[in-house]
Amino acid sequence: MYELGVVYRNITRADSAVADGLARYGSATVHEAMGRVGLLKPYMRPIYAGAQVSGTAVTVLLHPGDNWMMHVVAEQIRPGDIVVAGLTAECTDGYFGDLLATSFQARGARALIIDAGVRDVRTLTEMSFPVWSRAISSKGTIKATLGSVNVPVVCAGALVTPGDVIVADDDGVVCVPRALAASTLDAAAKREALEGEKRERLASGVLGLDMYQMREPLARAGLRYVD
Amino acid sequence: MYELGVVYRNITRADSAVADGLARYGSATVHEAMGRVGLLKPYMRPIYAGAQVSGTAVTVLLHPGDNWMMHVVAEQIRPGDIVVAGLTAECTDGYFGDLLATSFQARGARALIIDAGVRDVRTLTEMSFPVWSRAISSKGTIKATLGSVNVPVVCAGALVTPGDVIVADDDGVVCVPRALAASTLDAAAKREALEGEKRERLASGVLGLDMYQMREPLARAGLRYVD
Amino acid sequence: MYELGVVYRNITRADSAVADGLARYGSATVHEAMGRVGLLKPYMRPIYAGAQVSGTAVTVLLHPGDNWMMHVVAEQIRPGDIVVAGLTAECTDGYFGDLLATSFQARGARALIIDAGVRDVRTLTEMSFPVWSRAISSKGTIKATLGSVNVPVVCAGALVTPGDVIVADDDGVVCVPRALAASTLDAAAKREALEGEKRERLASGVLGLDMYQMREPLARAGLRYVD
Amino acid sequence: MYELGVVYRNITRADSAVADGLARYGSATVHEAMGRVGLLKPYMRPIYAGAQVSGTAVTVLLHPGDNWMMHVVAEQIRPGDIVVAGLTAECTDGYFGDLLATSFQARGARALIIDAGVRDVRTLTEMSFPVWSRAISSKGTIKATLGSVNVPVVCAGALVTPGDVIVADDDGVVCVPRALAASTLDAAAKREALEGEKRERLASGVLGLDMYQMREPLARAGLRYVD
Amino acid sequence: MYELGVVYRNITRADSAVADGLARYGSATVHEAMGRVGLLKPYMRPIYAGAQVSGTAVTVLLHPGDNWMMHVVAEQIRPGDIVVAGLTAECTDGYFGDLLATSFQARGARALIIDAGVRDVRTLTEMSFPVWSRAISSKGTIKATLGSVNVPVVCAGALVTPGDVIVADDDGVVCVPRALAASTLDAAAKREALEGEKRERLASGVLGLDMYQMREPLARAGLRYVD
Amino acid sequence: MYELGVVYRNITRADSAVADGLARYGSATVHEAMGRVGLLKPYMRPIYAGAQVSGTAVTVLLHPGDNWMMHVVAEQIRPGDIVVAGLTAECTDGYFGDLLATSFQARGARALIIDAGVRDVRTLTEMSFPVWSRAISSKGTIKATLGSVNVPVVCAGALVTPGDVIVADDDGVVCVPRALAASTLDAAAKREALEGEKRERLASGVLGLDMYQMREPLARAGLRYVD
Repeated sequence: MYELGVVYRNITRADSAVADGLARYGSATVHEAMGRVGLLKPYMRPIYAGAQVSGTAVTVLLHPGDNWMMHVVAEQIRPGDIVVAGLTAECTDGYFGDLLATSFQARGARALIIDAGVRDVRTLTEMSFPVWSRAISSKGTIKATLGSVNVPVVCAGALVTPGDVIVADDDGVVCVPRALAASTLDAAAKREALEGEKRERLASGVLGLDMYQMREPLARAGLRYVD
Repeated sequence: MYELGVVYRNITRADSAVADGLARYGSATVHEAMGRVGLLKPYMRPIYAGAQVSGTAVTVLLHPGDNWMMHVVAEQIRPGDIVVAGLTAECTDGYFGDLLATSFQARGARALIIDAGVRDVRTLTEMSFPVWSRAISSKGTIKATLGSVNVPVVCAGALVTPGDVIVADDDGVVCVPRALAASTLDAAAKREALEGEKRERLASGVLGLDMYQMREPLARAGLRYVD
Repeated sequence: MYELGVVYRNITRADSAVADGLARYGSATVHEAMGRVGLLKPYMRPIYAGAQVSGTAVTVLLHPGDNWMMHVVAEQIRPGDIVVAGLTAECTDGYFGDLLATSFQARGARALIIDAGVRDVRTLTEMSFPVWSRAISSKGTIKATLGSVNVPVVCAGALVTPGDVIVADDDGVVCVPRALAASTLDAAAKREALEGEKRERLASGVLGLDMYQMREPLARAGLRYVD
Repeated sequence: MYELGVVYRNITRADSAVADGLARYGSATVHEAMGRVGLLKPYMRPIYAGAQVSGTAVTVLLHPGDNWMMHVVAEQIRPGDIVVAGLTAECTDGYFGDLLATSFQARGARALIIDAGVRDVRTLTEMSFPVWSRAISSKGTIKATLGSVNVPVVCAGALVTPGDVIVADDDGVVCVPRALAASTLDAAAKREALEGEKRERLASGVLGLDMYQMREPLARAGLRYVD
Repeated sequence: MYELGVVYRNITRADSAVADGLARYGSATVHEAMGRVGLLKPYMRPIYAGAQVSGTAVTVLLHPGDNWMMHVVAEQIRPGDIVVAGLTAECTDGYFGDLLATSFQARGARALIIDAGVRDVRTLTEMSFPVWSRAISSKGTIKATLGSVNVPVVCAGALVTPGDVIVADDDGVVCVPRALAASTLDAAAKREALEGEKRERLASGVLGLDMYQMREPLARAGLRYVD
Repeated sequence: MYELGVVYRNITRADSAVADGLARYGSATVHEAMGRVGLLKPYMRPIYAGAQVSGTAVTVLLHPGDNWMMHVVAEQIRPGDIVVAGLTAECTDGYFGDLLATSFQARGARALIIDAGVRDVRTLTEMSFPVWSRAISSKGTIKATLGSVNVPVVCAGALVTPGDVIVADDDGVVCVPRALAASTLDAAAKREALEGEKRERLASGVLGLDMYQMREPLARAGLRYVD
């Protein structure tokens, strides 16, 4: 975050089975499984609906209006990675388009999470290269100033350390620290296992009030019913 | 709005034929038919395109970050209702997901209008359960503080009283007070009856300037044409 | 911008072959070809995905909440035009719906660019009449105050002079001054001719670092690699 | 909110001793005394620092860009009133300046609360006429469309009924329903009576942890201290 | 707006007596005198209260995060000028601080109007160098890319041509085109001459309803009074 | 950031002479001295003008609408500290008022930096207890959920680690990592030493173009002057 002009080539990635396994639970369940932390702000939106991915974070720190480091980070991508781009100040310019996406995809990247703008979104959609961004913008960028690659970055209000696991879907983006990835996967699996049965009961007309035994605590908190 | 910890079980709903009938006219026509009032602010957006609904409002007042009352309101839903959720302060958390939607749908709710965030939007879309919200967010909520059910609420800048009619589509959301529902239905029907013929004339190349006889008032207001 | 109550009937439009030819390059390439200027702010979004158009600008200056001049501008549309609407103060009301779209389409308009809101977006989508706007809103407008037609307007932060070329797609909207249209078309064509080969090389795994010969300037700027 | 073109001349104001008495406690204490409801959104800011007022609400419903009804509401002001202006759609225009302020002040108004913009703020400051608004703007308005006076309005997300009590200071604005005004005054007085002693103890170095006996519930909730 | 890398040295400034004379009327009166056009958006705020200035515009077009051209424009300043800075894309960085202010003041500039951020605001206040900006930010900028000086710019939504007159005060900023400056000065003087008498009458309790003879048009528009 | 329910009692604070010494240079100079990183977003504004402070960070992680941990962090304050509060999701509620300020001040805190709202701002101003916040709001908070104290937090987009140095003034807030504090102090002192002479030269009419020898690089970049 504070170190400029450095590329860390060796980062310790979360276990790939764990990183891959988190995708199916989605950002909401994973965030709950972590104890309700780790979310990027909800202004981060997918450029197309329906993508649901997870992978290991490689990070890049960018300056406003300058995408030079996007080319530098490309070389550090390994199959299964998700690139996470933080900015030193707010910017909505289009840092990323179809050419960079072609390169990222060729290197094995699964997605881009960028706290700025992207462009060529129609082509990116056709390529099935998902991006979560704060903006879509045709605005081009220059290549003049050094940022860094694989330093910790703040992206949309969340700290992302290289090697953490990113989970992203239509609901948003969550960052799971590497050290918590395995336990979070377990907790997410447990949460989901319970959901199937709950869904059936709710579909049959059982109320959450009864299923979760809320009536007594609500009454204790003072809830009154008026006819 | 000011009463916390109360659930009103008996509300007077607008006539169901009227409530059902308003859907086909859409939010724009209904808002015009009421005299250009009753709209929720345009930051309220549908989670998927194409839904167009109407129904009677059951309301819930929520605190930021706390969705406890969503379970309480579920019990008050009757077939044909639309749940309208107001907040005591701004919040974009995800108050509502696929489990609550399953429950609401089982109770006969047609939609949710919420001045906050929702999640599981892909599943909600597959379930065809429409939601109009100010945000989409994975952020979970707690269950700690009492709000109220079926009190008047302000939702996205509009006052909604339980039993009012809600009309929502891709253009936005309008609230029709119960007492005005029948006359609004008539007015909306009349507006629409006139539109078919107008559309044909405009499609044939007739100008609104002539069709609406605007040339004279424009000239009177001082409009000058320069060649 | 400063002249109210005037309609300029005779404007000099950019050459139609040039205006038509720019669509295929899209807003991002055209903006780059102009030297990275001319973009409307990225809050301007298409009401549906996938439209990509270009055409000559006819302009209209509107007051907040008042769409009277939209009927006046309709008469000035010629086939191949795109209507560009600027506002004298911020407003998100729905100035434009299916009836006006029918009229604009009958006159030959290809699109509307409006720094305010529109409505009937489902019908507009069915009609394949693309709109780029700052908002979608059911809110109706009145017809009380004169603006102007075919004066220079500021739309979403960009100056648009009648007869300029507008290029719009999923990435945004760019305005090409009439005097620069032909040279911009050439520059855009050249940019795109180079992209095909680049895309192939990047897809094969060649890095931008090498393809663009960035390693040496990055090192000169002080980039350090740490293992 | 839904009725346009009406002026209610006879409204029931909250007791003036109660309305006057609430000013000294300020918006934060009064809001707490009501049970944490009734606040207008925090985008409502005073045009100058230091004013702290309370009074009875007379309300006005305005259309965007049109301040005609501000002259109509002036006639309904009685000494001790605060004018509360709601809008049918968002607008930041300058609805109110030194001439209207002179008139309002002559009628005995203590303040204006407006969900839009005002102007002549330097003169208003010199006149000591406080305003809480969402914006400051030179933009003028027209006088063309009817709103209403003394109907319930939504102002900055809060419902205000004519005759309610408004309390405003540097922290914001709160609306106390007429029926709750007397009990809220009592509750606010009690809250403040307790604060003097607390302040002394905290100033002497006693911790809130001890003064409020929070250590035990924090431990029960699982708080761990790490040396 | 579209021309980069150019400095126009010879511009035609509005008559200096006219430019100087507009200050006393303030932005609201001048904007009304022009027919309610020419205002910059209300997000432009003074860095300190109480300044009220007018002067002739010299303009500068800046890129996000790059203040190189601020040094270029300094040389083009003549006594009585106000520098107006437009941006090619949104940015809140601090482009201007006490050193540049010292230089601008030494050249005779009266103020800066910038659609971005500034810093050193405490020193600027002590220097009595007024600035209207969209943000205050410590963020520094680089000097890498050419913009232009004395080309037309869009600043906060308004077109400003070099030589136009700028009027700014606590209410906001207005741009008066050079060709309209003299007539606007006359119109502003006339408006103000009428205000003194109006203020006295309103202060004595006369209502605007009577003074402006609004009762009859309000009744004609359908206003009803209910007792 | 990810650890909830923990209070770290022993943190390593930056050297106090260094931490104290940074205040005089202000946030802009310190941010430049660090290489243009470390700034909190510019929406963080002081509640009153003129305060300029530095100190060592103690951090607190808060949940939306819940200020319980503010009492917990109070105990960890040592003289010379500045409390930095991060949130797990966006919130503008008033977490902090005169009672907590009394307690913080009694413990030796110099300021509060909070990515949420505060209240009692008039009293805080009278107490000379400076706060930088994203909002001012009367809205009260509850005490129900555990956050953490002295864990790394993201505050307004910047990572703050306990023991770092915070520098805040009217221009904004910057965080200097503990390890960089001494070298940043040196660099800031050097920057400022150079400024006095520059200011004198600029005040005498010398242009930055000449003083910084920019004419040649501008010409090389292609800048053209047109008479």
